[in-house]
Amino acid sequence: MSEHVTVIESVKLDDANDAIILLDQTQLPNKKEFLHLKTVDDVWDAIYQLKVRGAPAIGIAAAYGIYIVTKNSKATSFDAFYQEFKTAKEKLASSRPTAVNLFWALDRMEARLQNEQTGTITEIKNALREEADLIKKEDQKVCEAIGYHALEVLEPGWGILTHCNAGTIATAKYGTALAPIYLGQERGYDFKVYADETRPLLQGARLTAWELNEAGVDVTLICDNMASIVMSQDKVQAVLVGCDRVAANGDAANKIGTSGVAILAKHYGIPFYVCAPMSTIDLNTETGSDIEIELRSEEEIKTKWYSEPMAPADIKTYNPAFDVTDHSLITGIITEKGIVSPSYKENLTKIFE
Amino acid sequence: MSEHVTVIESVKLDDANDAIILLDQTQLPNKKEFLHLKTVDDVWDAIYQLKVRGAPAIGIAAAYGIYIVTKNSKATSFDAFYQEFKTAKEKLASSRPTAVNLFWALDRMEARLQNEQTGTITEIKNALREEADLIKKEDQKVCEAIGYHALEVLEPGWGILTHCNAGTIATAKYGTALAPIYLGQERGYDFKVYADETRPLLQGARLTAWELNEAGVDVTLICDNMASIVMSQDKVQAVLVGCDRVAANGDAANKIGTSGVAILAKHYGIPFYVCAPMSTIDLNTETGSDIEIELRSEEEIKTKWYSEPMAPADIKTYNPAFDVTDHSLITGIITEKGIVSPSYKENLTKIFE
Repeated sequence: MSEHVTVIESVKLDDANDAIILLDQTQLPNKKEFLHLKTVDDVWDAIYQLKVRGAPAIGIAAAYGIYIVTKNSKATSFDAFYQEFKTAKEKLASSRPTAVNLFWALDRMEARLQNEQTGTITEIKNALREEADLIKKEDQKVCEAIGYHALEVLEPGWGILTHCNAGTIATAKYGTALAPIYLGQERGYDFKVYADETRPLLQGARLTAWELNEAGVDVTLICDNMASIVMSQDKVQAVLVGCDRVAANGDAANKIGTSGVAILAKHYGIPFYVCAPMSTIDLNTETGSDIEIELRSEEEIKTKWYSEPMAPADIKTYNPAFDVTDHSLITGIITEKGIVSPSYKENLTKIFE
Repeated sequence: MSEHVTVIESVKLDDANDAIILLDQTQLPNKKEFLHLKTVDDVWDAIYQLKVRGAPAIGIAAAYGIYIVTKNSKATSFDAFYQEFKTAKEKLASSRPTAVNLFWALDRMEARLQNEQTGTITEIKNALREEADLIKKEDQKVCEAIGYHALEVLEPGWGILTHCNAGTIATAKYGTALAPIYLGQERGYDFKVYADETRPLLQGARLTAWELNEAGVDVTLICDNMASIVMSQDKVQAVLVGCDRVAANGDAANKIGTSGVAILAKHYGIPFYVCAPMSTIDLNTETGSDIEIELRSEEEIKTKWYSEPMAPADIKTYNPAFDVTDHSLITGIITEKGIVSPSYKENLTKIFE
């Protein structure tokens, strides 16, 4: 089956043409457009305008971005080259001031540059390309490892429900919660995926349904409030979701609505897995109640996307971006090092040893 | 408090002007427009175009409609008058062929006419107005009784979550699930209502949030997938929903998403009540699995309301209009005769005795 499966990579280097080829996620699902980014302004704009989203994908875009920009440098001394690098880095870092992965990737590129300062400018440029490739490859490996570990608990033909988008377009490749779907697809597992549309920002409808469909995965879009009936009809054998942060006790913060899906899964006796790269596990956060929930604008619920307002202008809304799924509802936390089972307090510590 | 509360009536008779004053629900929430219906075509159009929706409200509109239309008859014999009545009835009955309440109301008006055939034409016309008034009053009494019974289990200041619209605009007045909210408001109960927006057709956002806000009720609009976090934060002390049909064992069919809300309520230890007029309880339906679930178009999920499509055109959707809430999740079924508690199989039969 594998020759029929094409998993989208949202950020790719086109070194021969001094460009990054980047999927413009703001055009989805209505247009599949790849941009060719060549200048620091191109890359800045792509990150600022959310044409690339997802922490890993942003980091990769920034790493390749600073490589492509400094590759064309005419500097002949290390100091001159480093100066150009720092100017570009500062510019790119300003594109999305809340994206931790952006700074992490740029800092890592700078550290590599500093390590190479005894080399020629050409050697430094090659090292920067290597480092950016490495950042991408490492993320892809994390995703693949999560996917393979997840496949240990999934069976061919199963129905799998997912919420929001933890997919290939947010990462180097494969995604986190969607990694086992793609790897399963390559093995001919024939999963049937149910994608919650994920109000208010519809990441499930616009992104998850789109990317799975592009890869030929059997995907069915439902409204969030249809998860219960789909589960009640034995259409779903497992739930897979991504996560933003896992606390030391296993509580997992993820897109709003995740905790509700977990409660439904428990009610119907369906296993519920959180796919979490080690980088999202924060042993310094004791429990989920220590995680602050971002509250977002009423506009997202009342008017965004719509051709006219769908709610009275003067009513209140409550619009939390995330919720916390209690560890007692989670069957397993799937990391690149394997599946962590309860008790999480003990077992999450162990995987870091 | 009661003098400050104005509960909207969506269908009213304006006898002096030979008109029905009808709230145009298709304009909500962006415009509060009352139509003045005078001719059989006006009434037909209002029902056909869904300007009036909700089974009781449609019945009331049809009853007043046939009264207003035949009131202007110049017929001097019973037979001539009856002929005009039957022509109008046939026309109105064609406005919405699936609305059982429409035929029920028109048949009831015809039976009254037949009962009055020894009277003068003026007496017959007065009897028809009386009958239409009675249809409306009876419905209002059912709603009020449901509301008062529900208030027995609710306390002032409580947060109450509701799903879809079982409100005043769908009935003569007060609604079913919203009746205790309005009656509580009249008593100064100060409920805080959380309204699920209710995808895909957004009845919660467009209708429930609108009508409660108009009456000065403290209402907060949330996306369906936010019910879990709202419950987890102790913002909700009871859930009230309407229903389309209750089976003999207490299983309740209602708008899609209701069963999910019931499972969340059980998880968080929050009482879950179904507000059901006796007319919706069907002892001939043994369990919820005997209720056929209507599947609706993909357009409602993928494109309706939106300024551009929000999902890929070629992906599948699953769009059930209703789901069934298992009787084991229902704390009580609130009817006009009182609150029915488990075991429903025994107790639902008893209230019909």
